[in-house]
Amino acid sequence: MNGKIVKPSILPGFMELTPSDQILFNKMMDTIRKNYEKFGFLPIDTPLIEKSEVLLAKGGGETEKQIYKVVKGDTDMCLRFDLTVPLARYVAQHYSDLSFPYKRYHIGKVYRGERNQKGRFREFYQADIDIIGNGSLDVINDAEIPSVIYSTFKDLGFDSFTIKINNRKILSGFFNNLGINDSTFVLRTVDKLEKIGIDNVKNELKEIEISQTSIEKIIEFISINGTNDEIISKLKDLNIDNGLFVEGLNELSKTVEYIRLFGVPEENFAVDLTIARGLDYYTGTVYETFLNEYPEIGSVCSGGRYDDLATYYTKQKLPGVGISIGLTRLFYQLTEGEIIKSTDNSLTQVLVIPMDGYMDYAIKGSSILRESGIYTQVYFEEGKMGKKFNYADRLNIPYVIIVGKEESENNKYSFKNMKTGEQKIISMDEILECFK
Amino acid sequence: MNGKIVKPSILPGFMELTPSDQILFNKMMDTIRKNYEKFGFLPIDTPLIEKSEVLLAKGGGETEKQIYKVVKGDTDMCLRFDLTVPLARYVAQHYSDLSFPYKRYHIGKVYRGERNQKGRFREFYQADIDIIGNGSLDVINDAEIPSVIYSTFKDLGFDSFTIKINNRKILSGFFNNLGINDSTFVLRTVDKLEKIGIDNVKNELKEIEISQTSIEKIIEFISINGTNDEIISKLKDLNIDNGLFVEGLNELSKTVEYIRLFGVPEENFAVDLTIARGLDYYTGTVYETFLNEYPEIGSVCSGGRYDDLATYYTKQKLPGVGISIGLTRLFYQLTEGEIIKSTDNSLTQVLVIPMDGYMDYAIKGSSILRESGIYTQVYFEEGKMGKKFNYADRLNIPYVIIVGKEESENNKYSFKNMKTGEQKIISMDEILECFK
Repeated sequence: MNGKIVKPSILPGFMELTPSDQILFNKMMDTIRKNYEKFGFLPIDTPLIEKSEVLLAKGGGETEKQIYKVVKGDTDMCLRFDLTVPLARYVAQHYSDLSFPYKRYHIGKVYRGERNQKGRFREFYQADIDIIGNGSLDVINDAEIPSVIYSTFKDLGFDSFTIKINNRKILSGFFNNLGINDSTFVLRTVDKLEKIGIDNVKNELKEIEISQTSIEKIIEFISINGTNDEIISKLKDLNIDNGLFVEGLNELSKTVEYIRLFGVPEENFAVDLTIARGLDYYTGTVYETFLNEYPEIGSVCSGGRYDDLATYYTKQKLPGVGISIGLTRLFYQLTEGEIIKSTDNSLTQVLVIPMDGYMDYAIKGSSILRESGIYTQVYFEEGKMGKKFNYADRLNIPYVIIVGKEESENNKYSFKNMKTGEQKIISMDEILECFK
Repeated sequence: MNGKIVKPSILPGFMELTPSDQILFNKMMDTIRKNYEKFGFLPIDTPLIEKSEVLLAKGGGETEKQIYKVVKGDTDMCLRFDLTVPLARYVAQHYSDLSFPYKRYHIGKVYRGERNQKGRFREFYQADIDIIGNGSLDVINDAEIPSVIYSTFKDLGFDSFTIKINNRKILSGFFNNLGINDSTFVLRTVDKLEKIGIDNVKNELKEIEISQTSIEKIIEFISINGTNDEIISKLKDLNIDNGLFVEGLNELSKTVEYIRLFGVPEENFAVDLTIARGLDYYTGTVYETFLNEYPEIGSVCSGGRYDDLATYYTKQKLPGVGISIGLTRLFYQLTEGEIIKSTDNSLTQVLVIPMDGYMDYAIKGSSILRESGIYTQVYFEEGKMGKKFNYADRLNIPYVIIVGKEESENNKYSFKNMKTGEQKIISMDEILECFK
């Protein structure tokens, strides 16, 4: 102990919560987990560090620049930047141990060395589900994913949210039909519509030498709106003679039909032809989810269908569909915007406060409470009663039990409701009754 | 997609589980969490990466050699190697937001570049609890910790385990009384008794020039045994006139007395004078926990009392007591030794299998089941019935519901118990009744 003090701090871009926020965060995480499990998704937990050759097998792109390298010995290692690449590696590696369709959920931290700015995190939780087929995977799965999201966000306490749905085949097919064969750039431009506005989309398309006529047609196309059925009907009426387009439209129709069957109300999902998703591995259905009252937050849950999960690790064809909740960012936005607020400073339901000399009786009582499933804490430290009550107040523990001579002699407990201030001397049975 | 396949594999020393083992692991983790919360411990979740100057503020020692460095930009960062240093930093940093005694639990991964050998992990879960006082912390807390451990291991399904307890002040006081003032090395040597045997302990002590008489006295001392009360009584009878010794003995007596009050049965805890703990920051009570039927596993849960948690980050005096379960290693040992075995390949309780054309009816049924809290999955893929039943078998899903023409027309379901083979056509209400 040389007396030198290092300032206690964490790295920028890392989230660390106070106990009350942590309790709220854990509740959200538990709710998500429970919903994922209810639909048959299996848990997975992969190492945070992986071999670079595995994690970066795909190579290139923005991702590689954001990688955290890990150094110890000679092995080339890095921290995972999403949960999809580890899933691909896992499924390829444990292929013969898995039953397909393989449904898995994964809630875990990922790392991206993003530019430091408010609301962007370098360490953040993702909460993912994916359904992986062996060779093929029915399009009904594309409809189940939104139903899981619906159930999850409802349980998280939201009512007004919209799961926006599109199908990339429709977009690509439409572009192909206009003579645009490499539709990737057009897709990405369309995907930025919300962010950059219609004029900038037009300009960007002009720059890659899309003809004025085509640009007009593209704009007209992505402006198609109406109810889900109206949009699908308008798309059919276009009578576009392109295999990909027709395939995508059939998939979208079926997806919409089944989303309804899964019980998702019409107001909670919407076909939206402007949803394209920037990532290049999506090949069919794509999703983005918005909280209607807080559009500024952006998409809180996105994903889609991909043709082949694990091309870099296996020759098995593994199509899948999945979605990811960016939990850390969502939590940050919700608390920052005071959309949700932590209410519990503790999980403790009862604080037992013994008067001098009655610790034994207090401890015995606390054991009975805990055995009945009641989260109970005893205040062990010496001090004035005010300090002890103040502790219960600060942790906003709802009930306090005080024990002393009178209580001990009569085999009773002073039971105080901290909210109402009501206090009565009652038996343990009566206390337990209050918690039923 | 260049067709080049990277072999899917993970780094040596990292644990990754199959779905059924993961389910079992998560159950253990949930049980531990629930017990920690029941006693009033608050959750915490700190970044896995910290500034090196913070994490390595103490410096030196074995730990530093095992550090995983993290590289991205210029900041000197590394991965945490335990949950205690982050706790110290957290408490110093958020001091004014915390209510003391601050009870926190933390279940998370830590990283140590240990030599690669069976049963040793480089990434592993620790499940820690600590109670931190502001300035002081009553010794009753030293007795509560074993009661949490008792409750946790009982809930994990163990009956025959022993929480061994000692107090470092007793050892140091005894050594001081023999004229050995720097007792650290002697403590460490005594701590290795189980591993290296009595003769090697004697030799090591001889090497650091402890006199033959003192060595004999040390051996005689650590050989003191009997019931908890007998050992304490024998220690008292030694009449050692050393302040530290007397203080330690008082603490130990009080700890034993209160462990009983907390309801820990006599057979589940034992004063053991050979328990010293290698780590240098313990200053009072120390714990190690052994599964009596599997002594070869070694200690499954260890910890102790320390005078000051966060000397490197704050001038506040923060005494504490805590314990850690090395969850990954424990799980490995328990499954390797077939002491525990995974039984569930899935969390799904019901698999709904629709006959051709009855998907709608199947999906509606599954929604009702899920709304009633029953974990339900629908088999969406086309294929033969055998394949679908095989899926239920492989995931050992306990119940299967088959729906087709007959079921749909009569608003009923064929409900099959996969264990007994019993199958009956019943209503949804009757099915729900079965799960009550």
